[in-house]
Amino acid sequence: MPSLSAAFFETTMTDPVQKILEGDVRAGARLMRDIDDGIPSSRDILKALYPHTGNAYIIGISGFPGVGKSTLVDQLIHAYRAEGKTLGVLAVDPTSPFSGGAILGDRVRMQRHGTDPGVFIRSVATRGHFGGLSRSTYSMIDVLDAMGKDIILVETVGVGQDEVDIVTTAHTTIITVIPGMGDDIQAIKAGILEVADIFVVNKADREGLKKTVNELQAMLDMHDGTESDGRWRPPIVATEALRNVGIPELLSRISAHKSFLLSRGRAGLTERMRKKALRELMDTLKETVFAGLMDALKATDALDAMVDDLVDKQTDPFTLCDEILKTTLPKLANLQKPL
Amino acid sequence: MPSLSAAFFETTMTDPVQKILEGDVRAGARLMRDIDDGIPSSRDILKALYPHTGNAYIIGISGFPGVGKSTLVDQLIHAYRAEGKTLGVLAVDPTSPFSGGAILGDRVRMQRHGTDPGVFIRSVATRGHFGGLSRSTYSMIDVLDAMGKDIILVETVGVGQDEVDIVTTAHTTIITVIPGMGDDIQAIKAGILEVADIFVVNKADREGLKKTVNELQAMLDMHDGTESDGRWRPPIVATEALRNVGIPELLSRISAHKSFLLSRGRAGLTERMRKKALRELMDTLKETVFAGLMDALKATDALDAMVDDLVDKQTDPFTLCDEILKTTLPKLANLQKPL
Repeated sequence: MPSLSAAFFETTMTDPVQKILEGDVRAGARLMRDIDDGIPSSRDILKALYPHTGNAYIIGISGFPGVGKSTLVDQLIHAYRAEGKTLGVLAVDPTSPFSGGAILGDRVRMQRHGTDPGVFIRSVATRGHFGGLSRSTYSMIDVLDAMGKDIILVETVGVGQDEVDIVTTAHTTIITVIPGMGDDIQAIKAGILEVADIFVVNKADREGLKKTVNELQAMLDMHDGTESDGRWRPPIVATEALRNVGIPELLSRISAHKSFLLSRGRAGLTERMRKKALRELMDTLKETVFAGLMDALKATDALDAMVDDLVDKQTDPFTLCDEILKTTLPKLANLQKPL
Repeated sequence: MPSLSAAFFETTMTDPVQKILEGDVRAGARLMRDIDDGIPSSRDILKALYPHTGNAYIIGISGFPGVGKSTLVDQLIHAYRAEGKTLGVLAVDPTSPFSGGAILGDRVRMQRHGTDPGVFIRSVATRGHFGGLSRSTYSMIDVLDAMGKDIILVETVGVGQDEVDIVTTAHTTIITVIPGMGDDIQAIKAGILEVADIFVVNKADREGLKKTVNELQAMLDMHDGTESDGRWRPPIVATEALRNVGIPELLSRISAHKSFLLSRGRAGLTERMRKKALRELMDTLKETVFAGLMDALKATDALDAMVDDLVDKQTDPFTLCDEILKTTLPKLANLQKPL
């Protein structure tokens, strides 16, 4: 009898892995929910899936709110589906911890693909403050990858460090702006220029298109080399996503960037994959250590008194930090299952 | 002779602390630069300053790029200076790690206060990926506080989790929008509604003011109570920061919110200070542990090989994480000066 029950246990344990590798939508969705909720068993499934990842082409799409990223993503889905490709789509929504829900508009806009089995759309929320946003996103990329999706689109809002980090570990990173952004171009200049592989100027029918394109060109002239010295110069693609204008050109630019990365070998595609792997490892470490630390702290029930001491200026964060580490780290070192 | 040199050492060590407590701008600026650069000695100075913090009133100002936050901050500085108050101003710029510089526009716009000794303006960049952005910001708030500034304005761009966390530990949190934001209101709805103490609708001369105000009111009606049940209902203030319209009303709303917090005692102002203290402690812990972990990892020279193994699917991030923690945490536990 014990052997039967062990075999039964084994079957139910390996089941989700097998199902996800077969592309089962419900098994994939369940695992993603578990990742979002920080369920420990999700780690075991991710471990088993990891060897089967690395086949999907990951496209990151970032830009400030209001530039029309979701419409653009919707059109990209449509175009890639027409080519027979399967897609996974992640909408990273860092504001969700407050509301527990995703931004409604995004989902509504992509809903026309809701019944297409070749498209899997999900938003990424995050629970807690352990730097879990990017770790969750990487894990969900891995799930979609293991499910066999050809292309994974990752859409992030805003200019936060987390979001920028996430898109920059994609194979192709698209930064979306609109004409007439004015000072916002400054922000892009300062932050995102170095990481963009392709610039999209969406809502190209708006006033100021030429000025925005010229500004981007001038920035690229200052910072970048030309293609002749072996570096990639980010092209600027004007689109009107709502009317599907410019999408074929965008697709051909993405395809050209992929070819460029492939042609560069270890300095190209492999480098991007190394970057993603490193970030994924770092985030996992950060999350695991900090979650363990918090558990240890909460178990001692001392946190409230510590905060009181800080507010009353009886101590300071650095002294407290050293004290906490001295008592909790030795316990953590014996940790086998950190989460 | 040894006693003389020890006394000399003591003097030079306590010097920056004393100078900062006297409001010395150069000493304050030097410490902030050291914080930004992660110089270990900055911790010792911050420790000594911490007992002298907790006197400034902290106002957080957030909103998407392009809503005119910098102009608003500029007018607030002007108005508070007219009341004889001294100010510290922090512009949190999460994109800086890529360029090493701050967004130029912000600084230019506030430049008219550059020669006023009662105003200290600085941007916060961050080095590395240890969740240092908010820790740096809290530390810099503490420096300005210890310098004796009456009011500290913290301006953050965007909707990233870090930035939202930072503004929400202010005493008064102002969320800035503009008319006609459309879907962006959705993002605010999902993310920032719960943390706003005051809404500012800037660029109020633009089309769509009434619609935006009505949408905000409707959101507040759904989520919030009324003042009669003892809760604070965020007021909505229409401004044209460029023409200084609405600024006096904004000041009086901030003042009313401060009175509200004071009247609530432990549930009011103290709760905000506890929230900030807790976050500051958590960020310090996170940063310290992770920096120590990185040092230990880099010392072993094994990181490159680990990333190779990940890319080659010889292992997975979770297995590697457990292995790393097992070997490095015991070393970290003996750590005295973690940074």
